[in-house]
Amino acid sequence: MREAVRSPRERYREQVRDEIKAHAWTQVASTGASALSLNAIAKQMGISGPALYRYFRNRDDLITELVLGAYRDLSDTCRAAAAAEHTPAAQLTAVADALRRWALAAPHRYLLIYGTPVPGYAAPPEATAIAASIMSVLLDAFAKAGAPAAHARRPATDLQRHLATHRQWAGDHSASPAGLRRALTFWTRLHGVVSLEVAGHFTGMNFDPALLYAAEVDAVLNGT
Amino acid sequence: MREAVRSPRERYREQVRDEIKAHAWTQVASTGASALSLNAIAKQMGISGPALYRYFRNRDDLITELVLGAYRDLSDTCRAAAAAEHTPAAQLTAVADALRRWALAAPHRYLLIYGTPVPGYAAPPEATAIAASIMSVLLDAFAKAGAPAAHARRPATDLQRHLATHRQWAGDHSASPAGLRRALTFWTRLHGVVSLEVAGHFTGMNFDPALLYAAEVDAVLNGT
Repeated sequence: MREAVRSPRERYREQVRDEIKAHAWTQVASTGASALSLNAIAKQMGISGPALYRYFRNRDDLITELVLGAYRDLSDTCRAAAAAEHTPAAQLTAVADALRRWALAAPHRYLLIYGTPVPGYAAPPEATAIAASIMSVLLDAFAKAGAPAAHARRPATDLQRHLATHRQWAGDHSASPAGLRRALTFWTRLHGVVSLEVAGHFTGMNFDPALLYAAEVDAVLNGT
Repeated sequence: MREAVRSPRERYREQVRDEIKAHAWTQVASTGASALSLNAIAKQMGISGPALYRYFRNRDDLITELVLGAYRDLSDTCRAAAAAEHTPAAQLTAVADALRRWALAAPHRYLLIYGTPVPGYAAPPEATAIAASIMSVLLDAFAKAGAPAAHARRPATDLQRHLATHRQWAGDHSASPAGLRRALTFWTRLHGVVSLEVAGHFTGMNFDPALLYAAEVDAVLNGT
């Protein structure tokens, strides 16, 4: 598909949309996504409410732009981290590190997609598709890695038996049930640490969350 | 301390405060905590804004009541679950099950304390104290349980060495560094699963989150 030459008018429209999104991110951070106000943004930009609605039809449209932007950025970040390494263990460690850096750099962005849902807002199917593409990075690496030595003689758990027949979420991926389980727990364990960290729950506990995070990565990779 | 006899006026005041809190919970669920509006609640109750402000000085006061109420209820729930069992493993499994049921029963209540922080709002030290008391239930059980057989010959991890000298968050608890680590990961792993579940991230993935949750409990208890 050739890139269409965009008219000055189209470029201007894109510029205004970007400016609206920048204001929206500031609002998400300072007042929360559920209090997002298109009228407040219009006021800040010195345009009328109806003028702004020519760029985004409503609040949900604007939130969708932010959500998809965040998901795409996270997906690119994870893919780039994995592509820079050559062994599955190095790839997964790099993805984990990139995910935590990404979350800490802008907690409100991480929390917009993984924190409290915005009441009344439902993300579009495209968001689910990007989330699945992030999961496929993990599935590829775990399939390539095989089971860690510490797991070699472990019997299949109830979860693994269940995943053997409930694997539609992984598409047609060839990962074993143990691989599916490890990809899922990699996601939930890293989210467990990083979401509590960005929400401030470790503040004042006086331990280094980076070490807890690294231990969780190691636990999934090596069964420690 | 004897219970003071409360005057009709005091009882009425308590009743109105409870009614305000009930409206506030409905708002948290339907519009989000960051969009909580005392004026909207006054309107729903048919009283004036200034009249409502005689019960709660401001939005943050009201959020604090909700946050502390949620924390106290969760703490009572976890303590009751642990008290009903006799072995550490049974106690921890019961606490985990009670936590998930508590979260699923009212996701907005779980997410008010463990989800996206309300911008501009800071929970009072009392919330931290209740959170620490929940952690002490876990620490007691893990200290009593000792290391699972699968962990017996594992060398201490970087995290455990770190926790040996960064344990102020556990008060003067006698748990070993391995016990501290297991209590922390018990918390973060269960939160990892249950927070993604209540936020709807597993919807459409077509696997049973209860089995993933049970596998995570088992992983911390038995090193599986």
